[in-house]
Amino acid sequence: LIWAPSGRRLVSGLLALNLVLLGAALLTAEVFNPEGLKHQEPRLFILVLMALSLAWMLWYLLWARRQPGISPHRDHHAGGICVTVVLMVFSACSLLLHVFKMGYYIIMAECKPAAKVLLPFFEAPFLGLQTYLLWGHSRDCIHKHKILTRSGLVLTLTTDLLLWLSAVTEDTVHLEIELEKEERAVFPHASLPGSFDDSNIGMGNVSQCHCGAHAGCRIFRKGYEVLYPFNIEYYLMAACLLYIMWKNVGRHMEPHSHPEHAQKVTLRVVYHGGVLFGPLVGAVVLLVGIAIFIMYQVWVSSAHGRFTAFVLFYSYHLAVIPVMSFCSLAGVIIHKIEARAQDMGHNPTRSLDVILLLGTALGQLSICYFSVVAAWGMGPSGILGGLDLSYSLLSLLELILQNIFIIEGLHRHPDITQRQSRRKIREFNSFFKKGIKPKDTTKEVTDPPVPLVEKSEVRTATVAPVEKEPHSRNHWSRRVLQEICAFLILANIMLWVIPAFGAHPQFENGLGKQFFGFSAWFVIVNLGQPLGVFYRMHSVGALLEVLVTA
Amino acid sequence: LIWAPSGRRLVSGLLALNLVLLGAALLTAEVFNPEGLKHQEPRLFILVLMALSLAWMLWYLLWARRQPGISPHRDHHAGGICVTVVLMVFSACSLLLHVFKMGYYIIMAECKPAAKVLLPFFEAPFLGLQTYLLWGHSRDCIHKHKILTRSGLVLTLTTDLLLWLSAVTEDTVHLEIELEKEERAVFPHASLPGSFDDSNIGMGNVSQCHCGAHAGCRIFRKGYEVLYPFNIEYYLMAACLLYIMWKNVGRHMEPHSHPEHAQKVTLRVVYHGGVLFGPLVGAVVLLVGIAIFIMYQVWVSSAHGRFTAFVLFYSYHLAVIPVMSFCSLAGVIIHKIEARAQDMGHNPTRSLDVILLLGTALGQLSICYFSVVAAWGMGPSGILGGLDLSYSLLSLLELILQNIFIIEGLHRHPDITQRQSRRKIREFNSFFKKGIKPKDTTKEVTDPPVPLVEKSEVRTATVAPVEKEPHSRNHWSRRVLQEICAFLILANIMLWVIPAFGAHPQFENGLGKQFFGFSAWFVIVNLGQPLGVFYRMHSVGALLEVLVTA
Repeated sequence: LIWAPSGRRLVSGLLALNLVLLGAALLTAEVFNPEGLKHQEPRLFILVLMALSLAWMLWYLLWARRQPGISPHRDHHAGGICVTVVLMVFSACSLLLHVFKMGYYIIMAECKPAAKVLLPFFEAPFLGLQTYLLWGHSRDCIHKHKILTRSGLVLTLTTDLLLWLSAVTEDTVHLEIELEKEERAVFPHASLPGSFDDSNIGMGNVSQCHCGAHAGCRIFRKGYEVLYPFNIEYYLMAACLLYIMWKNVGRHMEPHSHPEHAQKVTLRVVYHGGVLFGPLVGAVVLLVGIAIFIMYQVWVSSAHGRFTAFVLFYSYHLAVIPVMSFCSLAGVIIHKIEARAQDMGHNPTRSLDVILLLGTALGQLSICYFSVVAAWGMGPSGILGGLDLSYSLLSLLELILQNIFIIEGLHRHPDITQRQSRRKIREFNSFFKKGIKPKDTTKEVTDPPVPLVEKSEVRTATVAPVEKEPHSRNHWSRRVLQEICAFLILANIMLWVIPAFGAHPQFENGLGKQFFGFSAWFVIVNLGQPLGVFYRMHSVGALLEVLVTA
Repeated sequence: LIWAPSGRRLVSGLLALNLVLLGAALLTAEVFNPEGLKHQEPRLFILVLMALSLAWMLWYLLWARRQPGISPHRDHHAGGICVTVVLMVFSACSLLLHVFKMGYYIIMAECKPAAKVLLPFFEAPFLGLQTYLLWGHSRDCIHKHKILTRSGLVLTLTTDLLLWLSAVTEDTVHLEIELEKEERAVFPHASLPGSFDDSNIGMGNVSQCHCGAHAGCRIFRKGYEVLYPFNIEYYLMAACLLYIMWKNVGRHMEPHSHPEHAQKVTLRVVYHGGVLFGPLVGAVVLLVGIAIFIMYQVWVSSAHGRFTAFVLFYSYHLAVIPVMSFCSLAGVIIHKIEARAQDMGHNPTRSLDVILLLGTALGQLSICYFSVVAAWGMGPSGILGGLDLSYSLLSLLELILQNIFIIEGLHRHPDITQRQSRRKIREFNSFFKKGIKPKDTTKEVTDPPVPLVEKSEVRTATVAPVEKEPHSRNHWSRRVLQEICAFLILANIMLWVIPAFGAHPQFENGLGKQFFGFSAWFVIVNLGQPLGVFYRMHSVGALLEVLVTA
């Protein structure tokens, strides 16, 4: 899975690299010198890329895919049912966002540049067509017109990345809202205990178009404000799927088991293993979380309920996250006690999993560290400040412990003993001590043959006791691990749903906003939050695997 | 070579991740809100890390390495002689820099915070001890006290990264110099044709300590200014070597051939193959380059010679870079004509080489794109602006073509035919057509057995003509490729020496500075230039390999 470019992939890779760098330079130029580029070059560049991508997608969907033998294989690991459904939801929200954006820009047309007003009209069809392509063809391993296909994929990918980057750095609408909020803040009911609305940093260059009393304009702008995180998520997710499609061009797949299989296995494990407490507690967390989320969404938009909404949000997280940390810690300790053989062989899928886990965790880790630094810099500041600080610190702990638990779980050797009779266990253990790998038992392992590496302690100390009473001990530790995994899966789903569907108190309630300035904090949160959502999604998948192999 | 964390490496990796994120948050806080952190927290954090790293290094050097069996293997690919010598040069320059820094800060002590004044006094011993460690032990594969060793390595690595980040974002000295330059700019002789000294952007928060007429202070500051790029390079390079050491902890090496072997082979190839024109033209480029470099350094510091120095610099590059692009293009075309079998097997060393080539190329590519955008935004602006723009565009072309040439070269199958008799060639080719790999010929390949993947064209079209006259054609294309590689190696060495030893006209001559603002441009150039130097160093290594296997 390492990116070893051959002739053709090299060319499309270099194309992508150069387009992304040029686009990033243009967008950066706009941030640092908004007056410097007189002809809206960043937007024109994105429009050209979008037109080219649209042309390629139409070519592929209308003409190329009808040809025989263009996609003889399908990669069943790409674009699972869960990912596709989430992508559809995000795409629907993004399309709605673009409708609001069109309305807002048409009302504001006289004081916005033409390229900006035109952009949503091109972006909506691009988004729709791309969603259709990813829905139907994200598993294709295309084998014809490889150069054209790779270039087209790379063009679409580049457009997604630049639209994402532009969404992350484009904060004018939010600056306008902040300004109006300040204007409102002279009314007495708007001054809440512990609210930080009075920050004045980073409000430099806002255009002077206000909605004023225009009701339609305000509705459109509110819709824009609520929906834009979905758009950011959508572009990141679509870029990931396109990247996998690009890697799959020209790939030959071996016939594999379907990934849906794993989910069925999970259900069977949970059902037959008598795993009860984990799913039960997880379901409670899920239900309470949904109730809290709905209350948060109802109250946060009103000036009166804002404070209560924040307190509710933080209280919920401060209750759930310590339990999750404790469960992860218990799991790590059980791993240590069990001291099972570790599977350290080369396994590219697992390496990618681990890299993705650590890479996406970076998002929330950095938001937490930035919050902690901001809290340190600002000193003690009210209830919300204290809640935010404890939330950040506990999140850090939880992320670290959960990562250790998941990664150690992924590296444990799948439990062969459970699928075999006692006789075979003893046979395996005796081979194990001699360091010889018996041919017949390795057939039970689902993965391709991997070397069995033992930890030195295993060999010296714990093999004998395991051999003495393998069943009772295994059963005990298996059960606890499965309960922990089941609970963590449901809790992670909840922690994924809350920020994915628009609750961002760390952005709205702002020690960080006050300390780093509006623009910097906007960029930090908008880079970190989508990665955090990705992390939760990915950790659910990894925990499923740990649960099955526990 | 994928980072598949096991128990222990996971812990030290997470430690590094968290320390880097916390440090980055602190340094970012200082950039966006210089008044926010009242107690110099970023510097205190770095000081603590430095003290811990120093303690670990002393422990390792004085006690641990004396133990028997702590480092039974040595990784002969790590820390080659060339890398070590360059590291020594950079470290000597960095130590000198710290002497200047100490002098400057002592004179300025009353208006600088205490932590800042203290920092160089701790940094110098840290730097010296680290250089000694890397000089003597960068090839160690440590097998005892693994947790402590990994943690210590990771601490030192984190300190290096944070010192690098702090050097990249720390621009106060340069802002002071810029301010004084402006004050001088009222004198008539300072206003040069096409000079952009009068930029006033980003000069916000400079402390009001000026050197004034204090001669010692000015000398110290000048030394600081000239030497700081070496310091940035040093930290990056040390971090790379420490990363390799960290990866090598607990690794078992197979007995390998020494990499010095490759250099001897190169010399033999060049000598016996009659390669003449490439080295000759390359030597001319090298000699002229050294002359230009010396003239540049002499003239650029004087106000009179500044313009001439820039024109000289750009003229030299505008002469050399098109020739390099043309050679790379010719090499790519020869690769296409020859259509040799491609070696597409899994080869982790080569994958790392390719990733490093593309990753380090990002540095210069982004500087070029940012310069192009700045030139586009500023419109036509004098001779130097035009020279800078053409230099950027040509560099882009050269980087892309050279990358294609090198990466395709690395993926060609090593020429087996040259080491065997005509009989064996025919035997090989007949096996080749049937797609069967003969056991006896693969023994000649130096790498571990890799699958021979053929391009479809090879099989259908070109095998027959190659078999007809393999020697003459091979000889012709081999010779040209070797000439090209030899020339590119020498040219890349020159393009590596010039920026590594302190010629940064893109920083001093500033369309970009004027367009993006001083601070943003400072960060862009200081992130990009060291990567560019790395790219040239690495491409020389890769070209050597292409030359040997041509």
